[in-house]
Amino acid sequence: MQKIDIYPIYIEPFHVDFTGRVFMGVLGNHLLNAAGNHSQKRGWGISALNENHHTWVLSRLSIEMTEMPRNYQHCQVSTWVESVMKLFTTRNFAIKDAEGNPMGYARSVWAMIDTETRRPCDLVTLYDGDLLNYVVSDEENVCHIEGHGRFRFRDAQLVRTLTTCYSDIDINGHVNSIKYIEHILNLFSRQQMERGIKRFEIAYKAESYMGDTLSFYVQPVDDNEIDVEVRKNISEDSNGDVVCQAKVRFNVSDE
Amino acid sequence: MQKIDIYPIYIEPFHVDFTGRVFMGVLGNHLLNAAGNHSQKRGWGISALNENHHTWVLSRLSIEMTEMPRNYQHCQVSTWVESVMKLFTTRNFAIKDAEGNPMGYARSVWAMIDTETRRPCDLVTLYDGDLLNYVVSDEENVCHIEGHGRFRFRDAQLVRTLTTCYSDIDINGHVNSIKYIEHILNLFSRQQMERGIKRFEIAYKAESYMGDTLSFYVQPVDDNEIDVEVRKNISEDSNGDVVCQAKVRFNVSDE
Repeated sequence: MQKIDIYPIYIEPFHVDFTGRVFMGVLGNHLLNAAGNHSQKRGWGISALNENHHTWVLSRLSIEMTEMPRNYQHCQVSTWVESVMKLFTTRNFAIKDAEGNPMGYARSVWAMIDTETRRPCDLVTLYDGDLLNYVVSDEENVCHIEGHGRFRFRDAQLVRTLTTCYSDIDINGHVNSIKYIEHILNLFSRQQMERGIKRFEIAYKAESYMGDTLSFYVQPVDDNEIDVEVRKNISEDSNGDVVCQAKVRFNVSDE
Repeated sequence: MQKIDIYPIYIEPFHVDFTGRVFMGVLGNHLLNAAGNHSQKRGWGISALNENHHTWVLSRLSIEMTEMPRNYQHCQVSTWVESVMKLFTTRNFAIKDAEGNPMGYARSVWAMIDTETRRPCDLVTLYDGDLLNYVVSDEENVCHIEGHGRFRFRDAQLVRTLTTCYSDIDINGHVNSIKYIEHILNLFSRQQMERGIKRFEIAYKAESYMGDTLSFYVQPVDDNEIDVEVRKNISEDSNGDVVCQAKVRFNVSDE
């Protein structure tokens, strides 16, 4: 079986922002759909795994674009497994236009857990190490963006607090991975978002649920980059738990 | 040219709620895409209209389902023009499963405005009355749900206020029609949403923009139905402007 799958995507009118570029959350959704389909085709889809009390957990996602898909544009997403380690597997993505010209790339890190014990599984030995069959060669692993960075929060400022609602929650009862991306980008001004996003990184740390209070802390890195930490259920007595951390790098303006 | 088009839709994992049913906003998005494609194919798409300084404005949308599409389900949306009047045209929809069994229907009302004068156009005479060519016969107009209802707000209670953000805004700089549906359904509890929605109606009254403050007023009609009014930029001195009004009817529980 081939190791890289290609999925067509189409950018719908309600899926673009006020600049006409696709929302980063929508692009992330396309990537996760491609990942899901690619896994499923190889017997590693969520439904098959669930029968054995296993499920994928997304740990990291980094998307870096030279050009963001625009309204009504037909594009394609290719995806493949880059590596398999004991506790994590890495999956990469390329986003191309209809003619196959690269528009950007993405990297992701996934763990698998046993849904009964909530403990991580050994991906190298699980199902007789079948996952290793899908790792691409170095030549095929074309993903021209940096790996996931590190976060260091020192003097982040609390800028918003919100309570999660119905539309945040997925079929598993968790706030869905894409909604964090939307909430984080909602922190920024019209002027910031006009520049567009060069790179978006997110590290998922803990689940949150309907009715949880999410607090958003912002820490500027430089003129073009801002780190965001999301904590849940902070109180007078507690700093709460870190739910996710993100790094947003804006395009450097042309002027 | 045939008068009714059929579009396949597929229900993606991130597009279903915690019960596994598609979000009403996502379903609405599918309907509006079908409407856009149907119009475009007949020379009445937004891009063609924009060249002549015309654009469609959605005035009413009512969706009533006997069964809500579920996770991973393949369905289809058919759409057609029901009638053309001077200031409004009505467009209906049928939502069916992959085998063609009806799951629900929807009705919508649209106006057209001149984007320079902001005045409504006469749809009966515009472009030599071409729109009239696409009106279906009575036999083809199969839409087994009631027409749009009326709203009467008397003692609605303010239950939430929010400021619109980046992710609310569409390419025209307005809060997009689908986002109102999401915000309105976010007012309800997990218990209410567990029942699922039988019918959702919305009347769009005025545009709102990024940074506007939206206030949500709720008025229960009976055990199964709640009316919601959204006003923008209320203050001590002003009741603000009505942005939209909605009627949410929940499924009657099986017990």
